Amino acid sequence: MKIGLIMQDFKFNINLNDFDFLIGVDRGALIAYQNNIYVNLAIGDFDSVTKDELILIQEKSKVIKLNPIKDLTDTADALKYAFKLSNDVTMLGGIEGKRIEHFIANLCLFKEYPLLKIENENSLIFCIKKPIRLPIKYKFASFFALNTVKSLCLKGFKYELANYDLELYDSLCISNEIICCDNLVSFKEGLLLIILSNDDH
Amino acid sequence: MKIGLIMQDFKFNINLNDFDFLIGVDRGALIAYQNNIYVNLAIGDFDSVTKDELILIQEKSKVIKLNPIKDLTDTADALKYAFKLSNDVTMLGGIEGKRIEHFIANLCLFKEYPLLKIENENSLIFCIKKPIRLPIKYKFASFFALNTVKSLCLKGFKYELANYDLELYDSLCISNEIICCDNLVSFKEGLLLIILSNDDH
Repeated sequence: MKIGLIMQDFKFNINLNDFDFLIGVDRGALIAYQNNIYVNLAIGDFDSVTKDELILIQEKSKVIKLNPIKDLTDTADALKYAFKLSNDVTMLGGIEGKRIEHFIANLCLFKEYPLLKIENENSLIFCIKKPIRLPIKYKFASFFALNTVKSLCLKGFKYELANYDLELYDSLCISNEIICCDNLVSFKEGLLLIILSNDDH
Repeated sequence: MKIGLIMQDFKFNINLNDFDFLIGVDRGALIAYQNNIYVNLAIGDFDSVTKDELILIQEKSKVIKLNPIKDLTDTADALKYAFKLSNDVTMLGGIEGKRIEHFIANLCLFKEYPLLKIENENSLIFCIKKPIRLPIKYKFASFFALNTVKSLCLKGFKYELANYDLELYDSLCISNEIICCDNLVSFKEGLLLIILSNDDH
């Protein structure tokens, strides 16, 4: 089952028909309705919506209301729920927005949920433990280590790389270009964060 | 000497009179001129501006033109130059923008330049090795470990915390509220990333 989490900065510019189950995270649930999208479930403390808006959300779908004083973010709670149902979970949005700390908190979630994907109209973020070929529908690929990635090799990219040990906080592998559909990202061990993106012009 | 690095997503909504030396990073230099701001130096490979725009930049200020095929990002090169001149360096912008991988690359720079500050109209990002009181002109404070932060204590915040070991990828300390000007962030060891932000409504 393919699950999508709708975040409040999501622009509804990705085809949602592929998803079997949609979860609106806090204000994301309201924004879904405003875009005529039905969500199967809304999760949040809903401190970012008014009382009337919450009533509207409750009329439209099942709601799990979290205590605003909690250790997990709304997103982390929604993910916990989603990964109980399926291993195929995509966060829709959660990248832009003025409160950039939320994006960092979302990146932290990869440690607990390495199968998570984060997607918006310009970017796809995910992490891998095994070699992969990247889809050429994206122009740029960036690679960061979530823990040390041993012997990283990049083939079929503008800048090829052989047996490089990528450490945490190393930004060497930012903005490479995917040249060839027969490309290959391989490494011996570690957890590799990949960000695919398109041109920003 | 207080140095400001103008990034291409900077909105020119911060008073720049405090800065003694401004560096335009790649397209940031062009955007400075378009906002009638004089930069002392422009650094970049300038692959994000046209030939004519580069000529305009060169007419207005000293330029260091980097080879587009390089291991460091334009920003990392500009920072290297800036920290040779001063320990007081602020990146202006570098937070928003569609290419979110650039923001992650900017965060990676804290490991090499722990004195760096990143600022835009809504957020101030910096890291500390010693206790600090936070300015109450910001509403929210978020804390992430760049390496394990031992015995983190938060006083004068909405959610107080005592002797918590904050690990990498732990998002427990996101979006705390600064309640009191006599607040205190203290810890025994580690490198703590702090993001101060205002409301996004």
